[in-house]
Amino acid sequence: MKTDIDGLMAQRGIDAMVIMGESVGNHALRYMTGGAKVSHAMVVKKRGEPALLICNPMEREEAARSGLTVTTTNDYDYPALVNETRSYFEAEMRLLATIFERHDITGTVSFYGVADPGRAYLLLSRLAQLVPTITVTGEPETSLFDEAYATKSAEELELLRDAARRTNAVFAETVDFIRGHAVGDGLLLKEDGAPLTIGDVRQFARMRLMAHGLEEEGPMILAIGRDGGIPHSRGEDSDPVALGRSIVFDLFPRVIETGYFHDMTRTFCLAYAPPEVERAYQQVMQAFNAVIDSLRVGEPTATYQNIVCDVFEEHGHPTPRSKPGTVEGYVHSVGHGLGLQIHSRPRFSTISQEVVQVGHVFTVEPGLYYPDQGFGVRVEDTVYIDEDGQVQSLTPFSKDLVIPVG
Amino acid sequence: MKTDIDGLMAQRGIDAMVIMGESVGNHALRYMTGGAKVSHAMVVKKRGEPALLICNPMEREEAARSGLTVTTTNDYDYPALVNETRSYFEAEMRLLATIFERHDITGTVSFYGVADPGRAYLLLSRLAQLVPTITVTGEPETSLFDEAYATKSAEELELLRDAARRTNAVFAETVDFIRGHAVGDGLLLKEDGAPLTIGDVRQFARMRLMAHGLEEEGPMILAIGRDGGIPHSRGEDSDPVALGRSIVFDLFPRVIETGYFHDMTRTFCLAYAPPEVERAYQQVMQAFNAVIDSLRVGEPTATYQNIVCDVFEEHGHPTPRSKPGTVEGYVHSVGHGLGLQIHSRPRFSTISQEVVQVGHVFTVEPGLYYPDQGFGVRVEDTVYIDEDGQVQSLTPFSKDLVIPVG
Repeated sequence: MKTDIDGLMAQRGIDAMVIMGESVGNHALRYMTGGAKVSHAMVVKKRGEPALLICNPMEREEAARSGLTVTTTNDYDYPALVNETRSYFEAEMRLLATIFERHDITGTVSFYGVADPGRAYLLLSRLAQLVPTITVTGEPETSLFDEAYATKSAEELELLRDAARRTNAVFAETVDFIRGHAVGDGLLLKEDGAPLTIGDVRQFARMRLMAHGLEEEGPMILAIGRDGGIPHSRGEDSDPVALGRSIVFDLFPRVIETGYFHDMTRTFCLAYAPPEVERAYQQVMQAFNAVIDSLRVGEPTATYQNIVCDVFEEHGHPTPRSKPGTVEGYVHSVGHGLGLQIHSRPRFSTISQEVVQVGHVFTVEPGLYYPDQGFGVRVEDTVYIDEDGQVQSLTPFSKDLVIPVG
Repeated sequence: MKTDIDGLMAQRGIDAMVIMGESVGNHALRYMTGGAKVSHAMVVKKRGEPALLICNPMEREEAARSGLTVTTTNDYDYPALVNETRSYFEAEMRLLATIFERHDITGTVSFYGVADPGRAYLLLSRLAQLVPTITVTGEPETSLFDEAYATKSAEELELLRDAARRTNAVFAETVDFIRGHAVGDGLLLKEDGAPLTIGDVRQFARMRLMAHGLEEEGPMILAIGRDGGIPHSRGEDSDPVALGRSIVFDLFPRVIETGYFHDMTRTFCLAYAPPEVERAYQQVMQAFNAVIDSLRVGEPTATYQNIVCDVFEEHGHPTPRSKPGTVEGYVHSVGHGLGLQIHSRPRFSTISQEVVQVGHVFTVEPGLYYPDQGFGVRVEDTVYIDEDGQVQSLTPFSKDLVIPVG
């Protein structure tokens, strides 16, 4: 939680932090500013003191909505630094030096945000030389933000509930849209008699996302048959929506206004399911329920990846544990935290060091993938651990494999 | 252009490049992969040799659409590296070392893409120690990508035309939507009699963006009155759309499929314009036309910022030249290149070192801002310099200040 940040800074020996860069993909900036709509900005925070937001003067009003103390780059004479150095790189470095001096920042300063890695390497190497009173660092593995993000405050949980409600609604509307089509020759047909395609359904779902105030960071997965057997295949827009084939529909939008994500997947077959899909589906649900039923506060997250591997290996499937790097059978980890990032802590791989905690919000998403047999199956809920340590699902949508049509 | 990259690498003494990171906001990755829908990946390219795309095995099919040679992290034993080191940071560093060794990469290696700056600083510092046969670097100022991006190939220009057509269509539909409302008490009224708000118009425009296959990286600006006087204010959703006030509408979406942006702004008043807005509008158009009429291949881009400052200073407005950091009058630069990034080269500030070239695509967007007087005015076209060195606009939408309603 955000209130943990000072403690985490102390624990890690960090005297001050700087979050820099563009706002696109910059979850640390969004987290600290409460989603103020700045296009780029800097947050500077000394341990034990309130954070300061330094913005472009054109964005001062949007910045003020963060509730943080706001200054603009004008306050540090940035326009003059640009004119003097005639270099944005030099000016940025001297801006940082000015900020450190003005706000009396010394000691270990850790950097976060979004940057071009080569430029960041040069900038921070040079900054370390220019300002000998600070030690430049970063966090290579689990950063303090990763830790803070993992547990949600009541306020964040409400935003995640809101994201869940909207996403479940779009999911339901999209399934209804599919079901609203006539059947002919094993396909669904549009009013003009042409087959309904994956692309048609995707466009419908996109329009509904927008109607519900949701946006995609990456395209939804809507994949039929073999494409569903490759977990990250987005699906082919020209494919017809055929009966009796597995359709993997993975929807993971965020609320435009708040930035919080939901993540859910259902696999369904229209009218009927082939036996191999039915069998895989039962095994996936067995793994899903085994995880849900055993989630306990204090248990290592790695336990749950092992539980899923146990179930699938028992049924004869390769897993990342039995066959590292496998692209058939079970090929990923059982879940991931989410919030302002779609992939966040906790992690659920066998090497994860984390334990399940109250306030964790994460996906549970076992799957089986056999592209050469023409199918994949994944079922995914987003769940959270409530104050009593109980698991609660944010994804109430039906898990029926077969959806009747016609 | 992309075909310039080997030449630019030679000119800058770069033996190989690595583009890393997530795909979100990663224009270099998108440029090199032709928009393959991978969620994260690495592009490695030795000078004079084809680029190699290294992806997660789950994304191998999407990666193959890039047309590049594709390998997966499995080919470098990444799963084993993770298991051995039990650290994603260490495993990533050793993955890079393995790639350099396998592909015989030595000399100066420059890094690009998207990263957390502190982590990138540590990763590249450590990598430099681990692999003494390479010199780690980056590009602090104008990178070779910045230079390559600035001039568009015929194929890219077609994608920018497509983005322009779609965006102009949404703009027109949105203006028609506004005009389709009844007038009452100086406001526009919805069917239920409630005032039409900025939020209603924004939501309509968002739905039309989606219908045209466009998405926003940052929210459009739709700002009435004083909010339009702060160039980056997004506008207040609860504001009613009133007659006789300046409305700044700045739309800058990208095509979902291709990633190419368009950027256009109109300022309009419904029914009638107040005299101070009318006056500012004439001056903005004078500056706009002065730029368009004088654009010449080979001329420094800084010339055009100076031309706009000349016009506005003559009319008594402060400018960034006469008053660096001003937040009234003219407060930004006259334009920016665009392509896969909304802000790209060429730059048009007074310190820019660039000259206008054939194939440049950029905005021309003078504006005047007086928030305390309750208005702002900006007019923006995206233009390009054709093969004959002529300026062509991609933004044919009408520039009338007053839009009749009722």
